[in-house]
Amino acid sequence: MTTKTFPFTLEQTEALAKIHPTPFHLYDEEAIRENARRITAAFSILPAFREYFAVKAAPNPFLLKILASEGFGADCSSMAELKLCEKIGLHGERIMFTSNETPDAEFIEARRLGAILNLDDITHMDAVVAATGSLPDTLCFRYNPGPLKEGNAIIGKPEEAKYGLTRDQIFEAYARAWDAGVKRFGLHTMVVSNELNEQYHIETVRMLFELAVEIKKNTGVGVSFINTGGGVGIPYRPEEKAVDYAVIANAVRQAYDELLAPAGLGNAAFNVEWGRCITGPYGWLVTRAIRQKNTYRSYIGVDASMANLMRPGMYGAYHHLTVLGKESAPADHTYDVVGSLCENCDKFAIERHLPEIHPGDLIVLHDTGAHGHAMGFNYNGKPRSTELLRRTDGSILQIRKPETLDHLFSTLDFPALASFQA
Amino acid sequence: MTTKTFPFTLEQTEALAKIHPTPFHLYDEEAIRENARRITAAFSILPAFREYFAVKAAPNPFLLKILASEGFGADCSSMAELKLCEKIGLHGERIMFTSNETPDAEFIEARRLGAILNLDDITHMDAVVAATGSLPDTLCFRYNPGPLKEGNAIIGKPEEAKYGLTRDQIFEAYARAWDAGVKRFGLHTMVVSNELNEQYHIETVRMLFELAVEIKKNTGVGVSFINTGGGVGIPYRPEEKAVDYAVIANAVRQAYDELLAPAGLGNAAFNVEWGRCITGPYGWLVTRAIRQKNTYRSYIGVDASMANLMRPGMYGAYHHLTVLGKESAPADHTYDVVGSLCENCDKFAIERHLPEIHPGDLIVLHDTGAHGHAMGFNYNGKPRSTELLRRTDGSILQIRKPETLDHLFSTLDFPALASFQA
Repeated sequence: MTTKTFPFTLEQTEALAKIHPTPFHLYDEEAIRENARRITAAFSILPAFREYFAVKAAPNPFLLKILASEGFGADCSSMAELKLCEKIGLHGERIMFTSNETPDAEFIEARRLGAILNLDDITHMDAVVAATGSLPDTLCFRYNPGPLKEGNAIIGKPEEAKYGLTRDQIFEAYARAWDAGVKRFGLHTMVVSNELNEQYHIETVRMLFELAVEIKKNTGVGVSFINTGGGVGIPYRPEEKAVDYAVIANAVRQAYDELLAPAGLGNAAFNVEWGRCITGPYGWLVTRAIRQKNTYRSYIGVDASMANLMRPGMYGAYHHLTVLGKESAPADHTYDVVGSLCENCDKFAIERHLPEIHPGDLIVLHDTGAHGHAMGFNYNGKPRSTELLRRTDGSILQIRKPETLDHLFSTLDFPALASFQA
Repeated sequence: MTTKTFPFTLEQTEALAKIHPTPFHLYDEEAIRENARRITAAFSILPAFREYFAVKAAPNPFLLKILASEGFGADCSSMAELKLCEKIGLHGERIMFTSNETPDAEFIEARRLGAILNLDDITHMDAVVAATGSLPDTLCFRYNPGPLKEGNAIIGKPEEAKYGLTRDQIFEAYARAWDAGVKRFGLHTMVVSNELNEQYHIETVRMLFELAVEIKKNTGVGVSFINTGGGVGIPYRPEEKAVDYAVIANAVRQAYDELLAPAGLGNAAFNVEWGRCITGPYGWLVTRAIRQKNTYRSYIGVDASMANLMRPGMYGAYHHLTVLGKESAPADHTYDVVGSLCENCDKFAIERHLPEIHPGDLIVLHDTGAHGHAMGFNYNGKPRSTELLRRTDGSILQIRKPETLDHLFSTLDFPALASFQA
C-alpha cells in the first residue's frame, strides 16, 4: 500500500491558484531530494555508484540542477537534452549519451561536452569516427539480449526492440573498439519499463554481470562500468508498493561478490538511468473541475487535458486522483473525469469511484512528476501548462512558464499569411 | 486500390531538401483544391451544403485560407483554433464551435466571432448565459445516440463517449432553447472516425434525419441545419478504396426526399465537419534514412520521429512508405523503419517489405496531411518540423517554420536558472 499525499491543503492550493491559475504541474524539492538521498545511501555499498537521471522523464533544468546537486548525472538521448545539461553546468562523465539512430550533430555535441557515448549499434563506431574524426577513449555499448533464454522471460520481447547490439555483436564490438585504441569500456542494457518487482531488476543486473564476465573471457576487455538502465516503476495505484532500493542494492552487492569479483571486475562502477522513480511520485498535476454532465455516464470536465498529461489517454494508464478538501469524504460517486480535448480518449479517469465533485473543486492527479509535462502535445491547439517548484523552504518558484497562444503560433508567419493569395 | 503518389521526383526532392532540410511536411495546394471541388460538386444536390474543415486535423492558417477560398468553413473546438480562423478573416456562421468541457473564455470568444455554438451538454445553455449574458439566436446541439438500437451497431460505443446529449435530453434541449428565445436551430452528431464504408456515413445521416423529424414532432422545432460531423476515412493502405463522395451525396439526397421533405424540413442545410479526407492524402512527411542496423531485425533509422508523426507509434497506424527513386525496385527487403526517439514505439513501419534502403535515401510517408504535424509532441526534446506548401504554380512556400531549440526552451527562464541555488 502506498499513501497518496499532496503537500498543500485546499486553502493553500486555492491561494496558489490565484497566482498560477490551474492547470499547473507542481514538484516538491524536498521530497525529490529525500528520495535521491535514499537511493544514494542504499547504493553506497557498491563501487562508484551513479544514477544518471533520464532527462526525458522531466526535462526541466531546475529539476536537473537539484538532482545534479545531489550527485546525479544525466542520461541524454537528444540534442535538446544535451543542451539542457550544458545550461546547468553538467559535462564530462556526468552525462551518459544513450541515443539511437543518432544524427552526426548529436555525436559531435556529446563529444564536445565530454559525455560518455553509449553506442546503440556496432556500426556506430564508424559513424562516430565519420562524425567526429576519432573514437573517444571511453566507450559504452548497449546490449539487447533478444530472444535468448538468458534474457529472461520477464523482459518482454527485446528481440522486437530497436535498441542495442546482439550477443554476437557485443563481443565483436569490444574487440574492435580495443583494436581501435579505446581504453575504457562500459556495458549497458535497458530491458524493462515501469517495473515494481525488484527481482526483475536484479535478474537484469545478473544477466549483465554474467555478460561482462564473458566479455572479459572472450575479448580480454574488462569493463570499467556497468549501467543497467532504467525501468524502476512507481506505485501509481495505492494498492501497489514502491520498489525497495535496499533490496536491489543488496542483491547487486551479492552479484558483485559472486560474479564480478571472481573475474577481476569487482571494481567496475555501478550505474543506472532511472527517471520515473526519481521525480514521478513527487510531482502533481492540479486541475479544476469546470463542467459536469450526466448522460450515459456522469462526467466531470476539468481544465487540464491530454496536453498536460498524456499517459491516461495514450496508454490507459492509471493516475490516482484526490479531490482537495474531500480527502475523507466517501467515494460514493462514479465519474469519468475528462479534459476538453476533442478526442474521446482525453479522460483522466474512467468510471472512477470518487467523492461527489462540483464545478470549482480542485482535483490533484498524483504521480505526474515523470513523463507528465514532458509528453504533452499541442493537439487541438491546447497549450501546455506551467511548472511550479515547492522549494525546501516552502516557497514556490515558477520553473516553467505556461504556454500562451503566442508560443503555439511562434512558428507561423502572420504577415506572410496576410499577404498570402489563396 | 489506391495509387500512392508524390508530386516530386527524387531529384526535385533533393533540390528541395537543400533549402529545407529533412524532415519536412509537404502539402499540395492543387490536389487539396481539386478534392475540395469534388466534394462541393458532389454535394451541390443538397440544400446549402457546407463543409466545416476540422481545424485540429491540420491547424495551419495557410491551409485554412485555401479551404476558405473554396467556400469551406471551419470546425473549431479550442481558443487557438478560433484565433486562427480570425487570422484568416473567417467569422460568423462560417465557424462551427464544436467543443466539450468548454471554458467560459471560449464561449465568449466564439460568440465574439459570431460562430455557431454547438452545445455538447444540456447544462451548457446555462453556462453560455453565465459566460456571455445571453443565448445566441442560433444554437446547435450535439446528439449522442448512446446504446440505443437506432444508434447502429456500427457506431462503436457512443455510450462510452464523453460527447453530446442523450435522446431524452435532446428533446428537452430544443424545447428549453425555444422557450428561452432561440430562433434558429441546428442538430449535430459525430459518431464514427476514419470510416471508409459509405453505408456507415449514410446510416448516420438517416439516424440524424429521423431524429430531426422527431424533434419537430415532439417540440415543434424545425431545425435549419443538420451537421453529421466527420469521420470520413482515407485509404491509408494501397489496397483500400477512397470514399465515393457521390454515393454519400446521392443517398443523403434520397434521405432528404424520404425523411426530411415530408416533415417540412426539406430546406434544412446539410453540413459536415470533415478533416482527415480533406487534407490527409495531399500531405506527405519526407524524411531521410540516416542509419542502418541489423540485429534481431533489420532497421532503417530516419531523421523524422514520432514528434513529426504520432499515428504509427500511438495507434499502430499504417502509413504507406515510398523510397524515392526506387519506386520500381522490388520490395525484397524487410525493415523496421524507425525514428530516433527514445521510445520503442517510435517506428513508422514494422517488418515492412520495401526496396533495399541505404543511408542517404529519401523516404516519403504518405497521407500525413491530417493529424500529422498537428499531433506532434516534443518528448525527448524533439523539435517539430517545417511545413511546406506546393502552390498551384509549382512554387514552394514555407507555411510553418521548423522548431528550433529556442522554441523548445521558450518557456524556460535561463537567467533565473543561472541564479537558482540548488
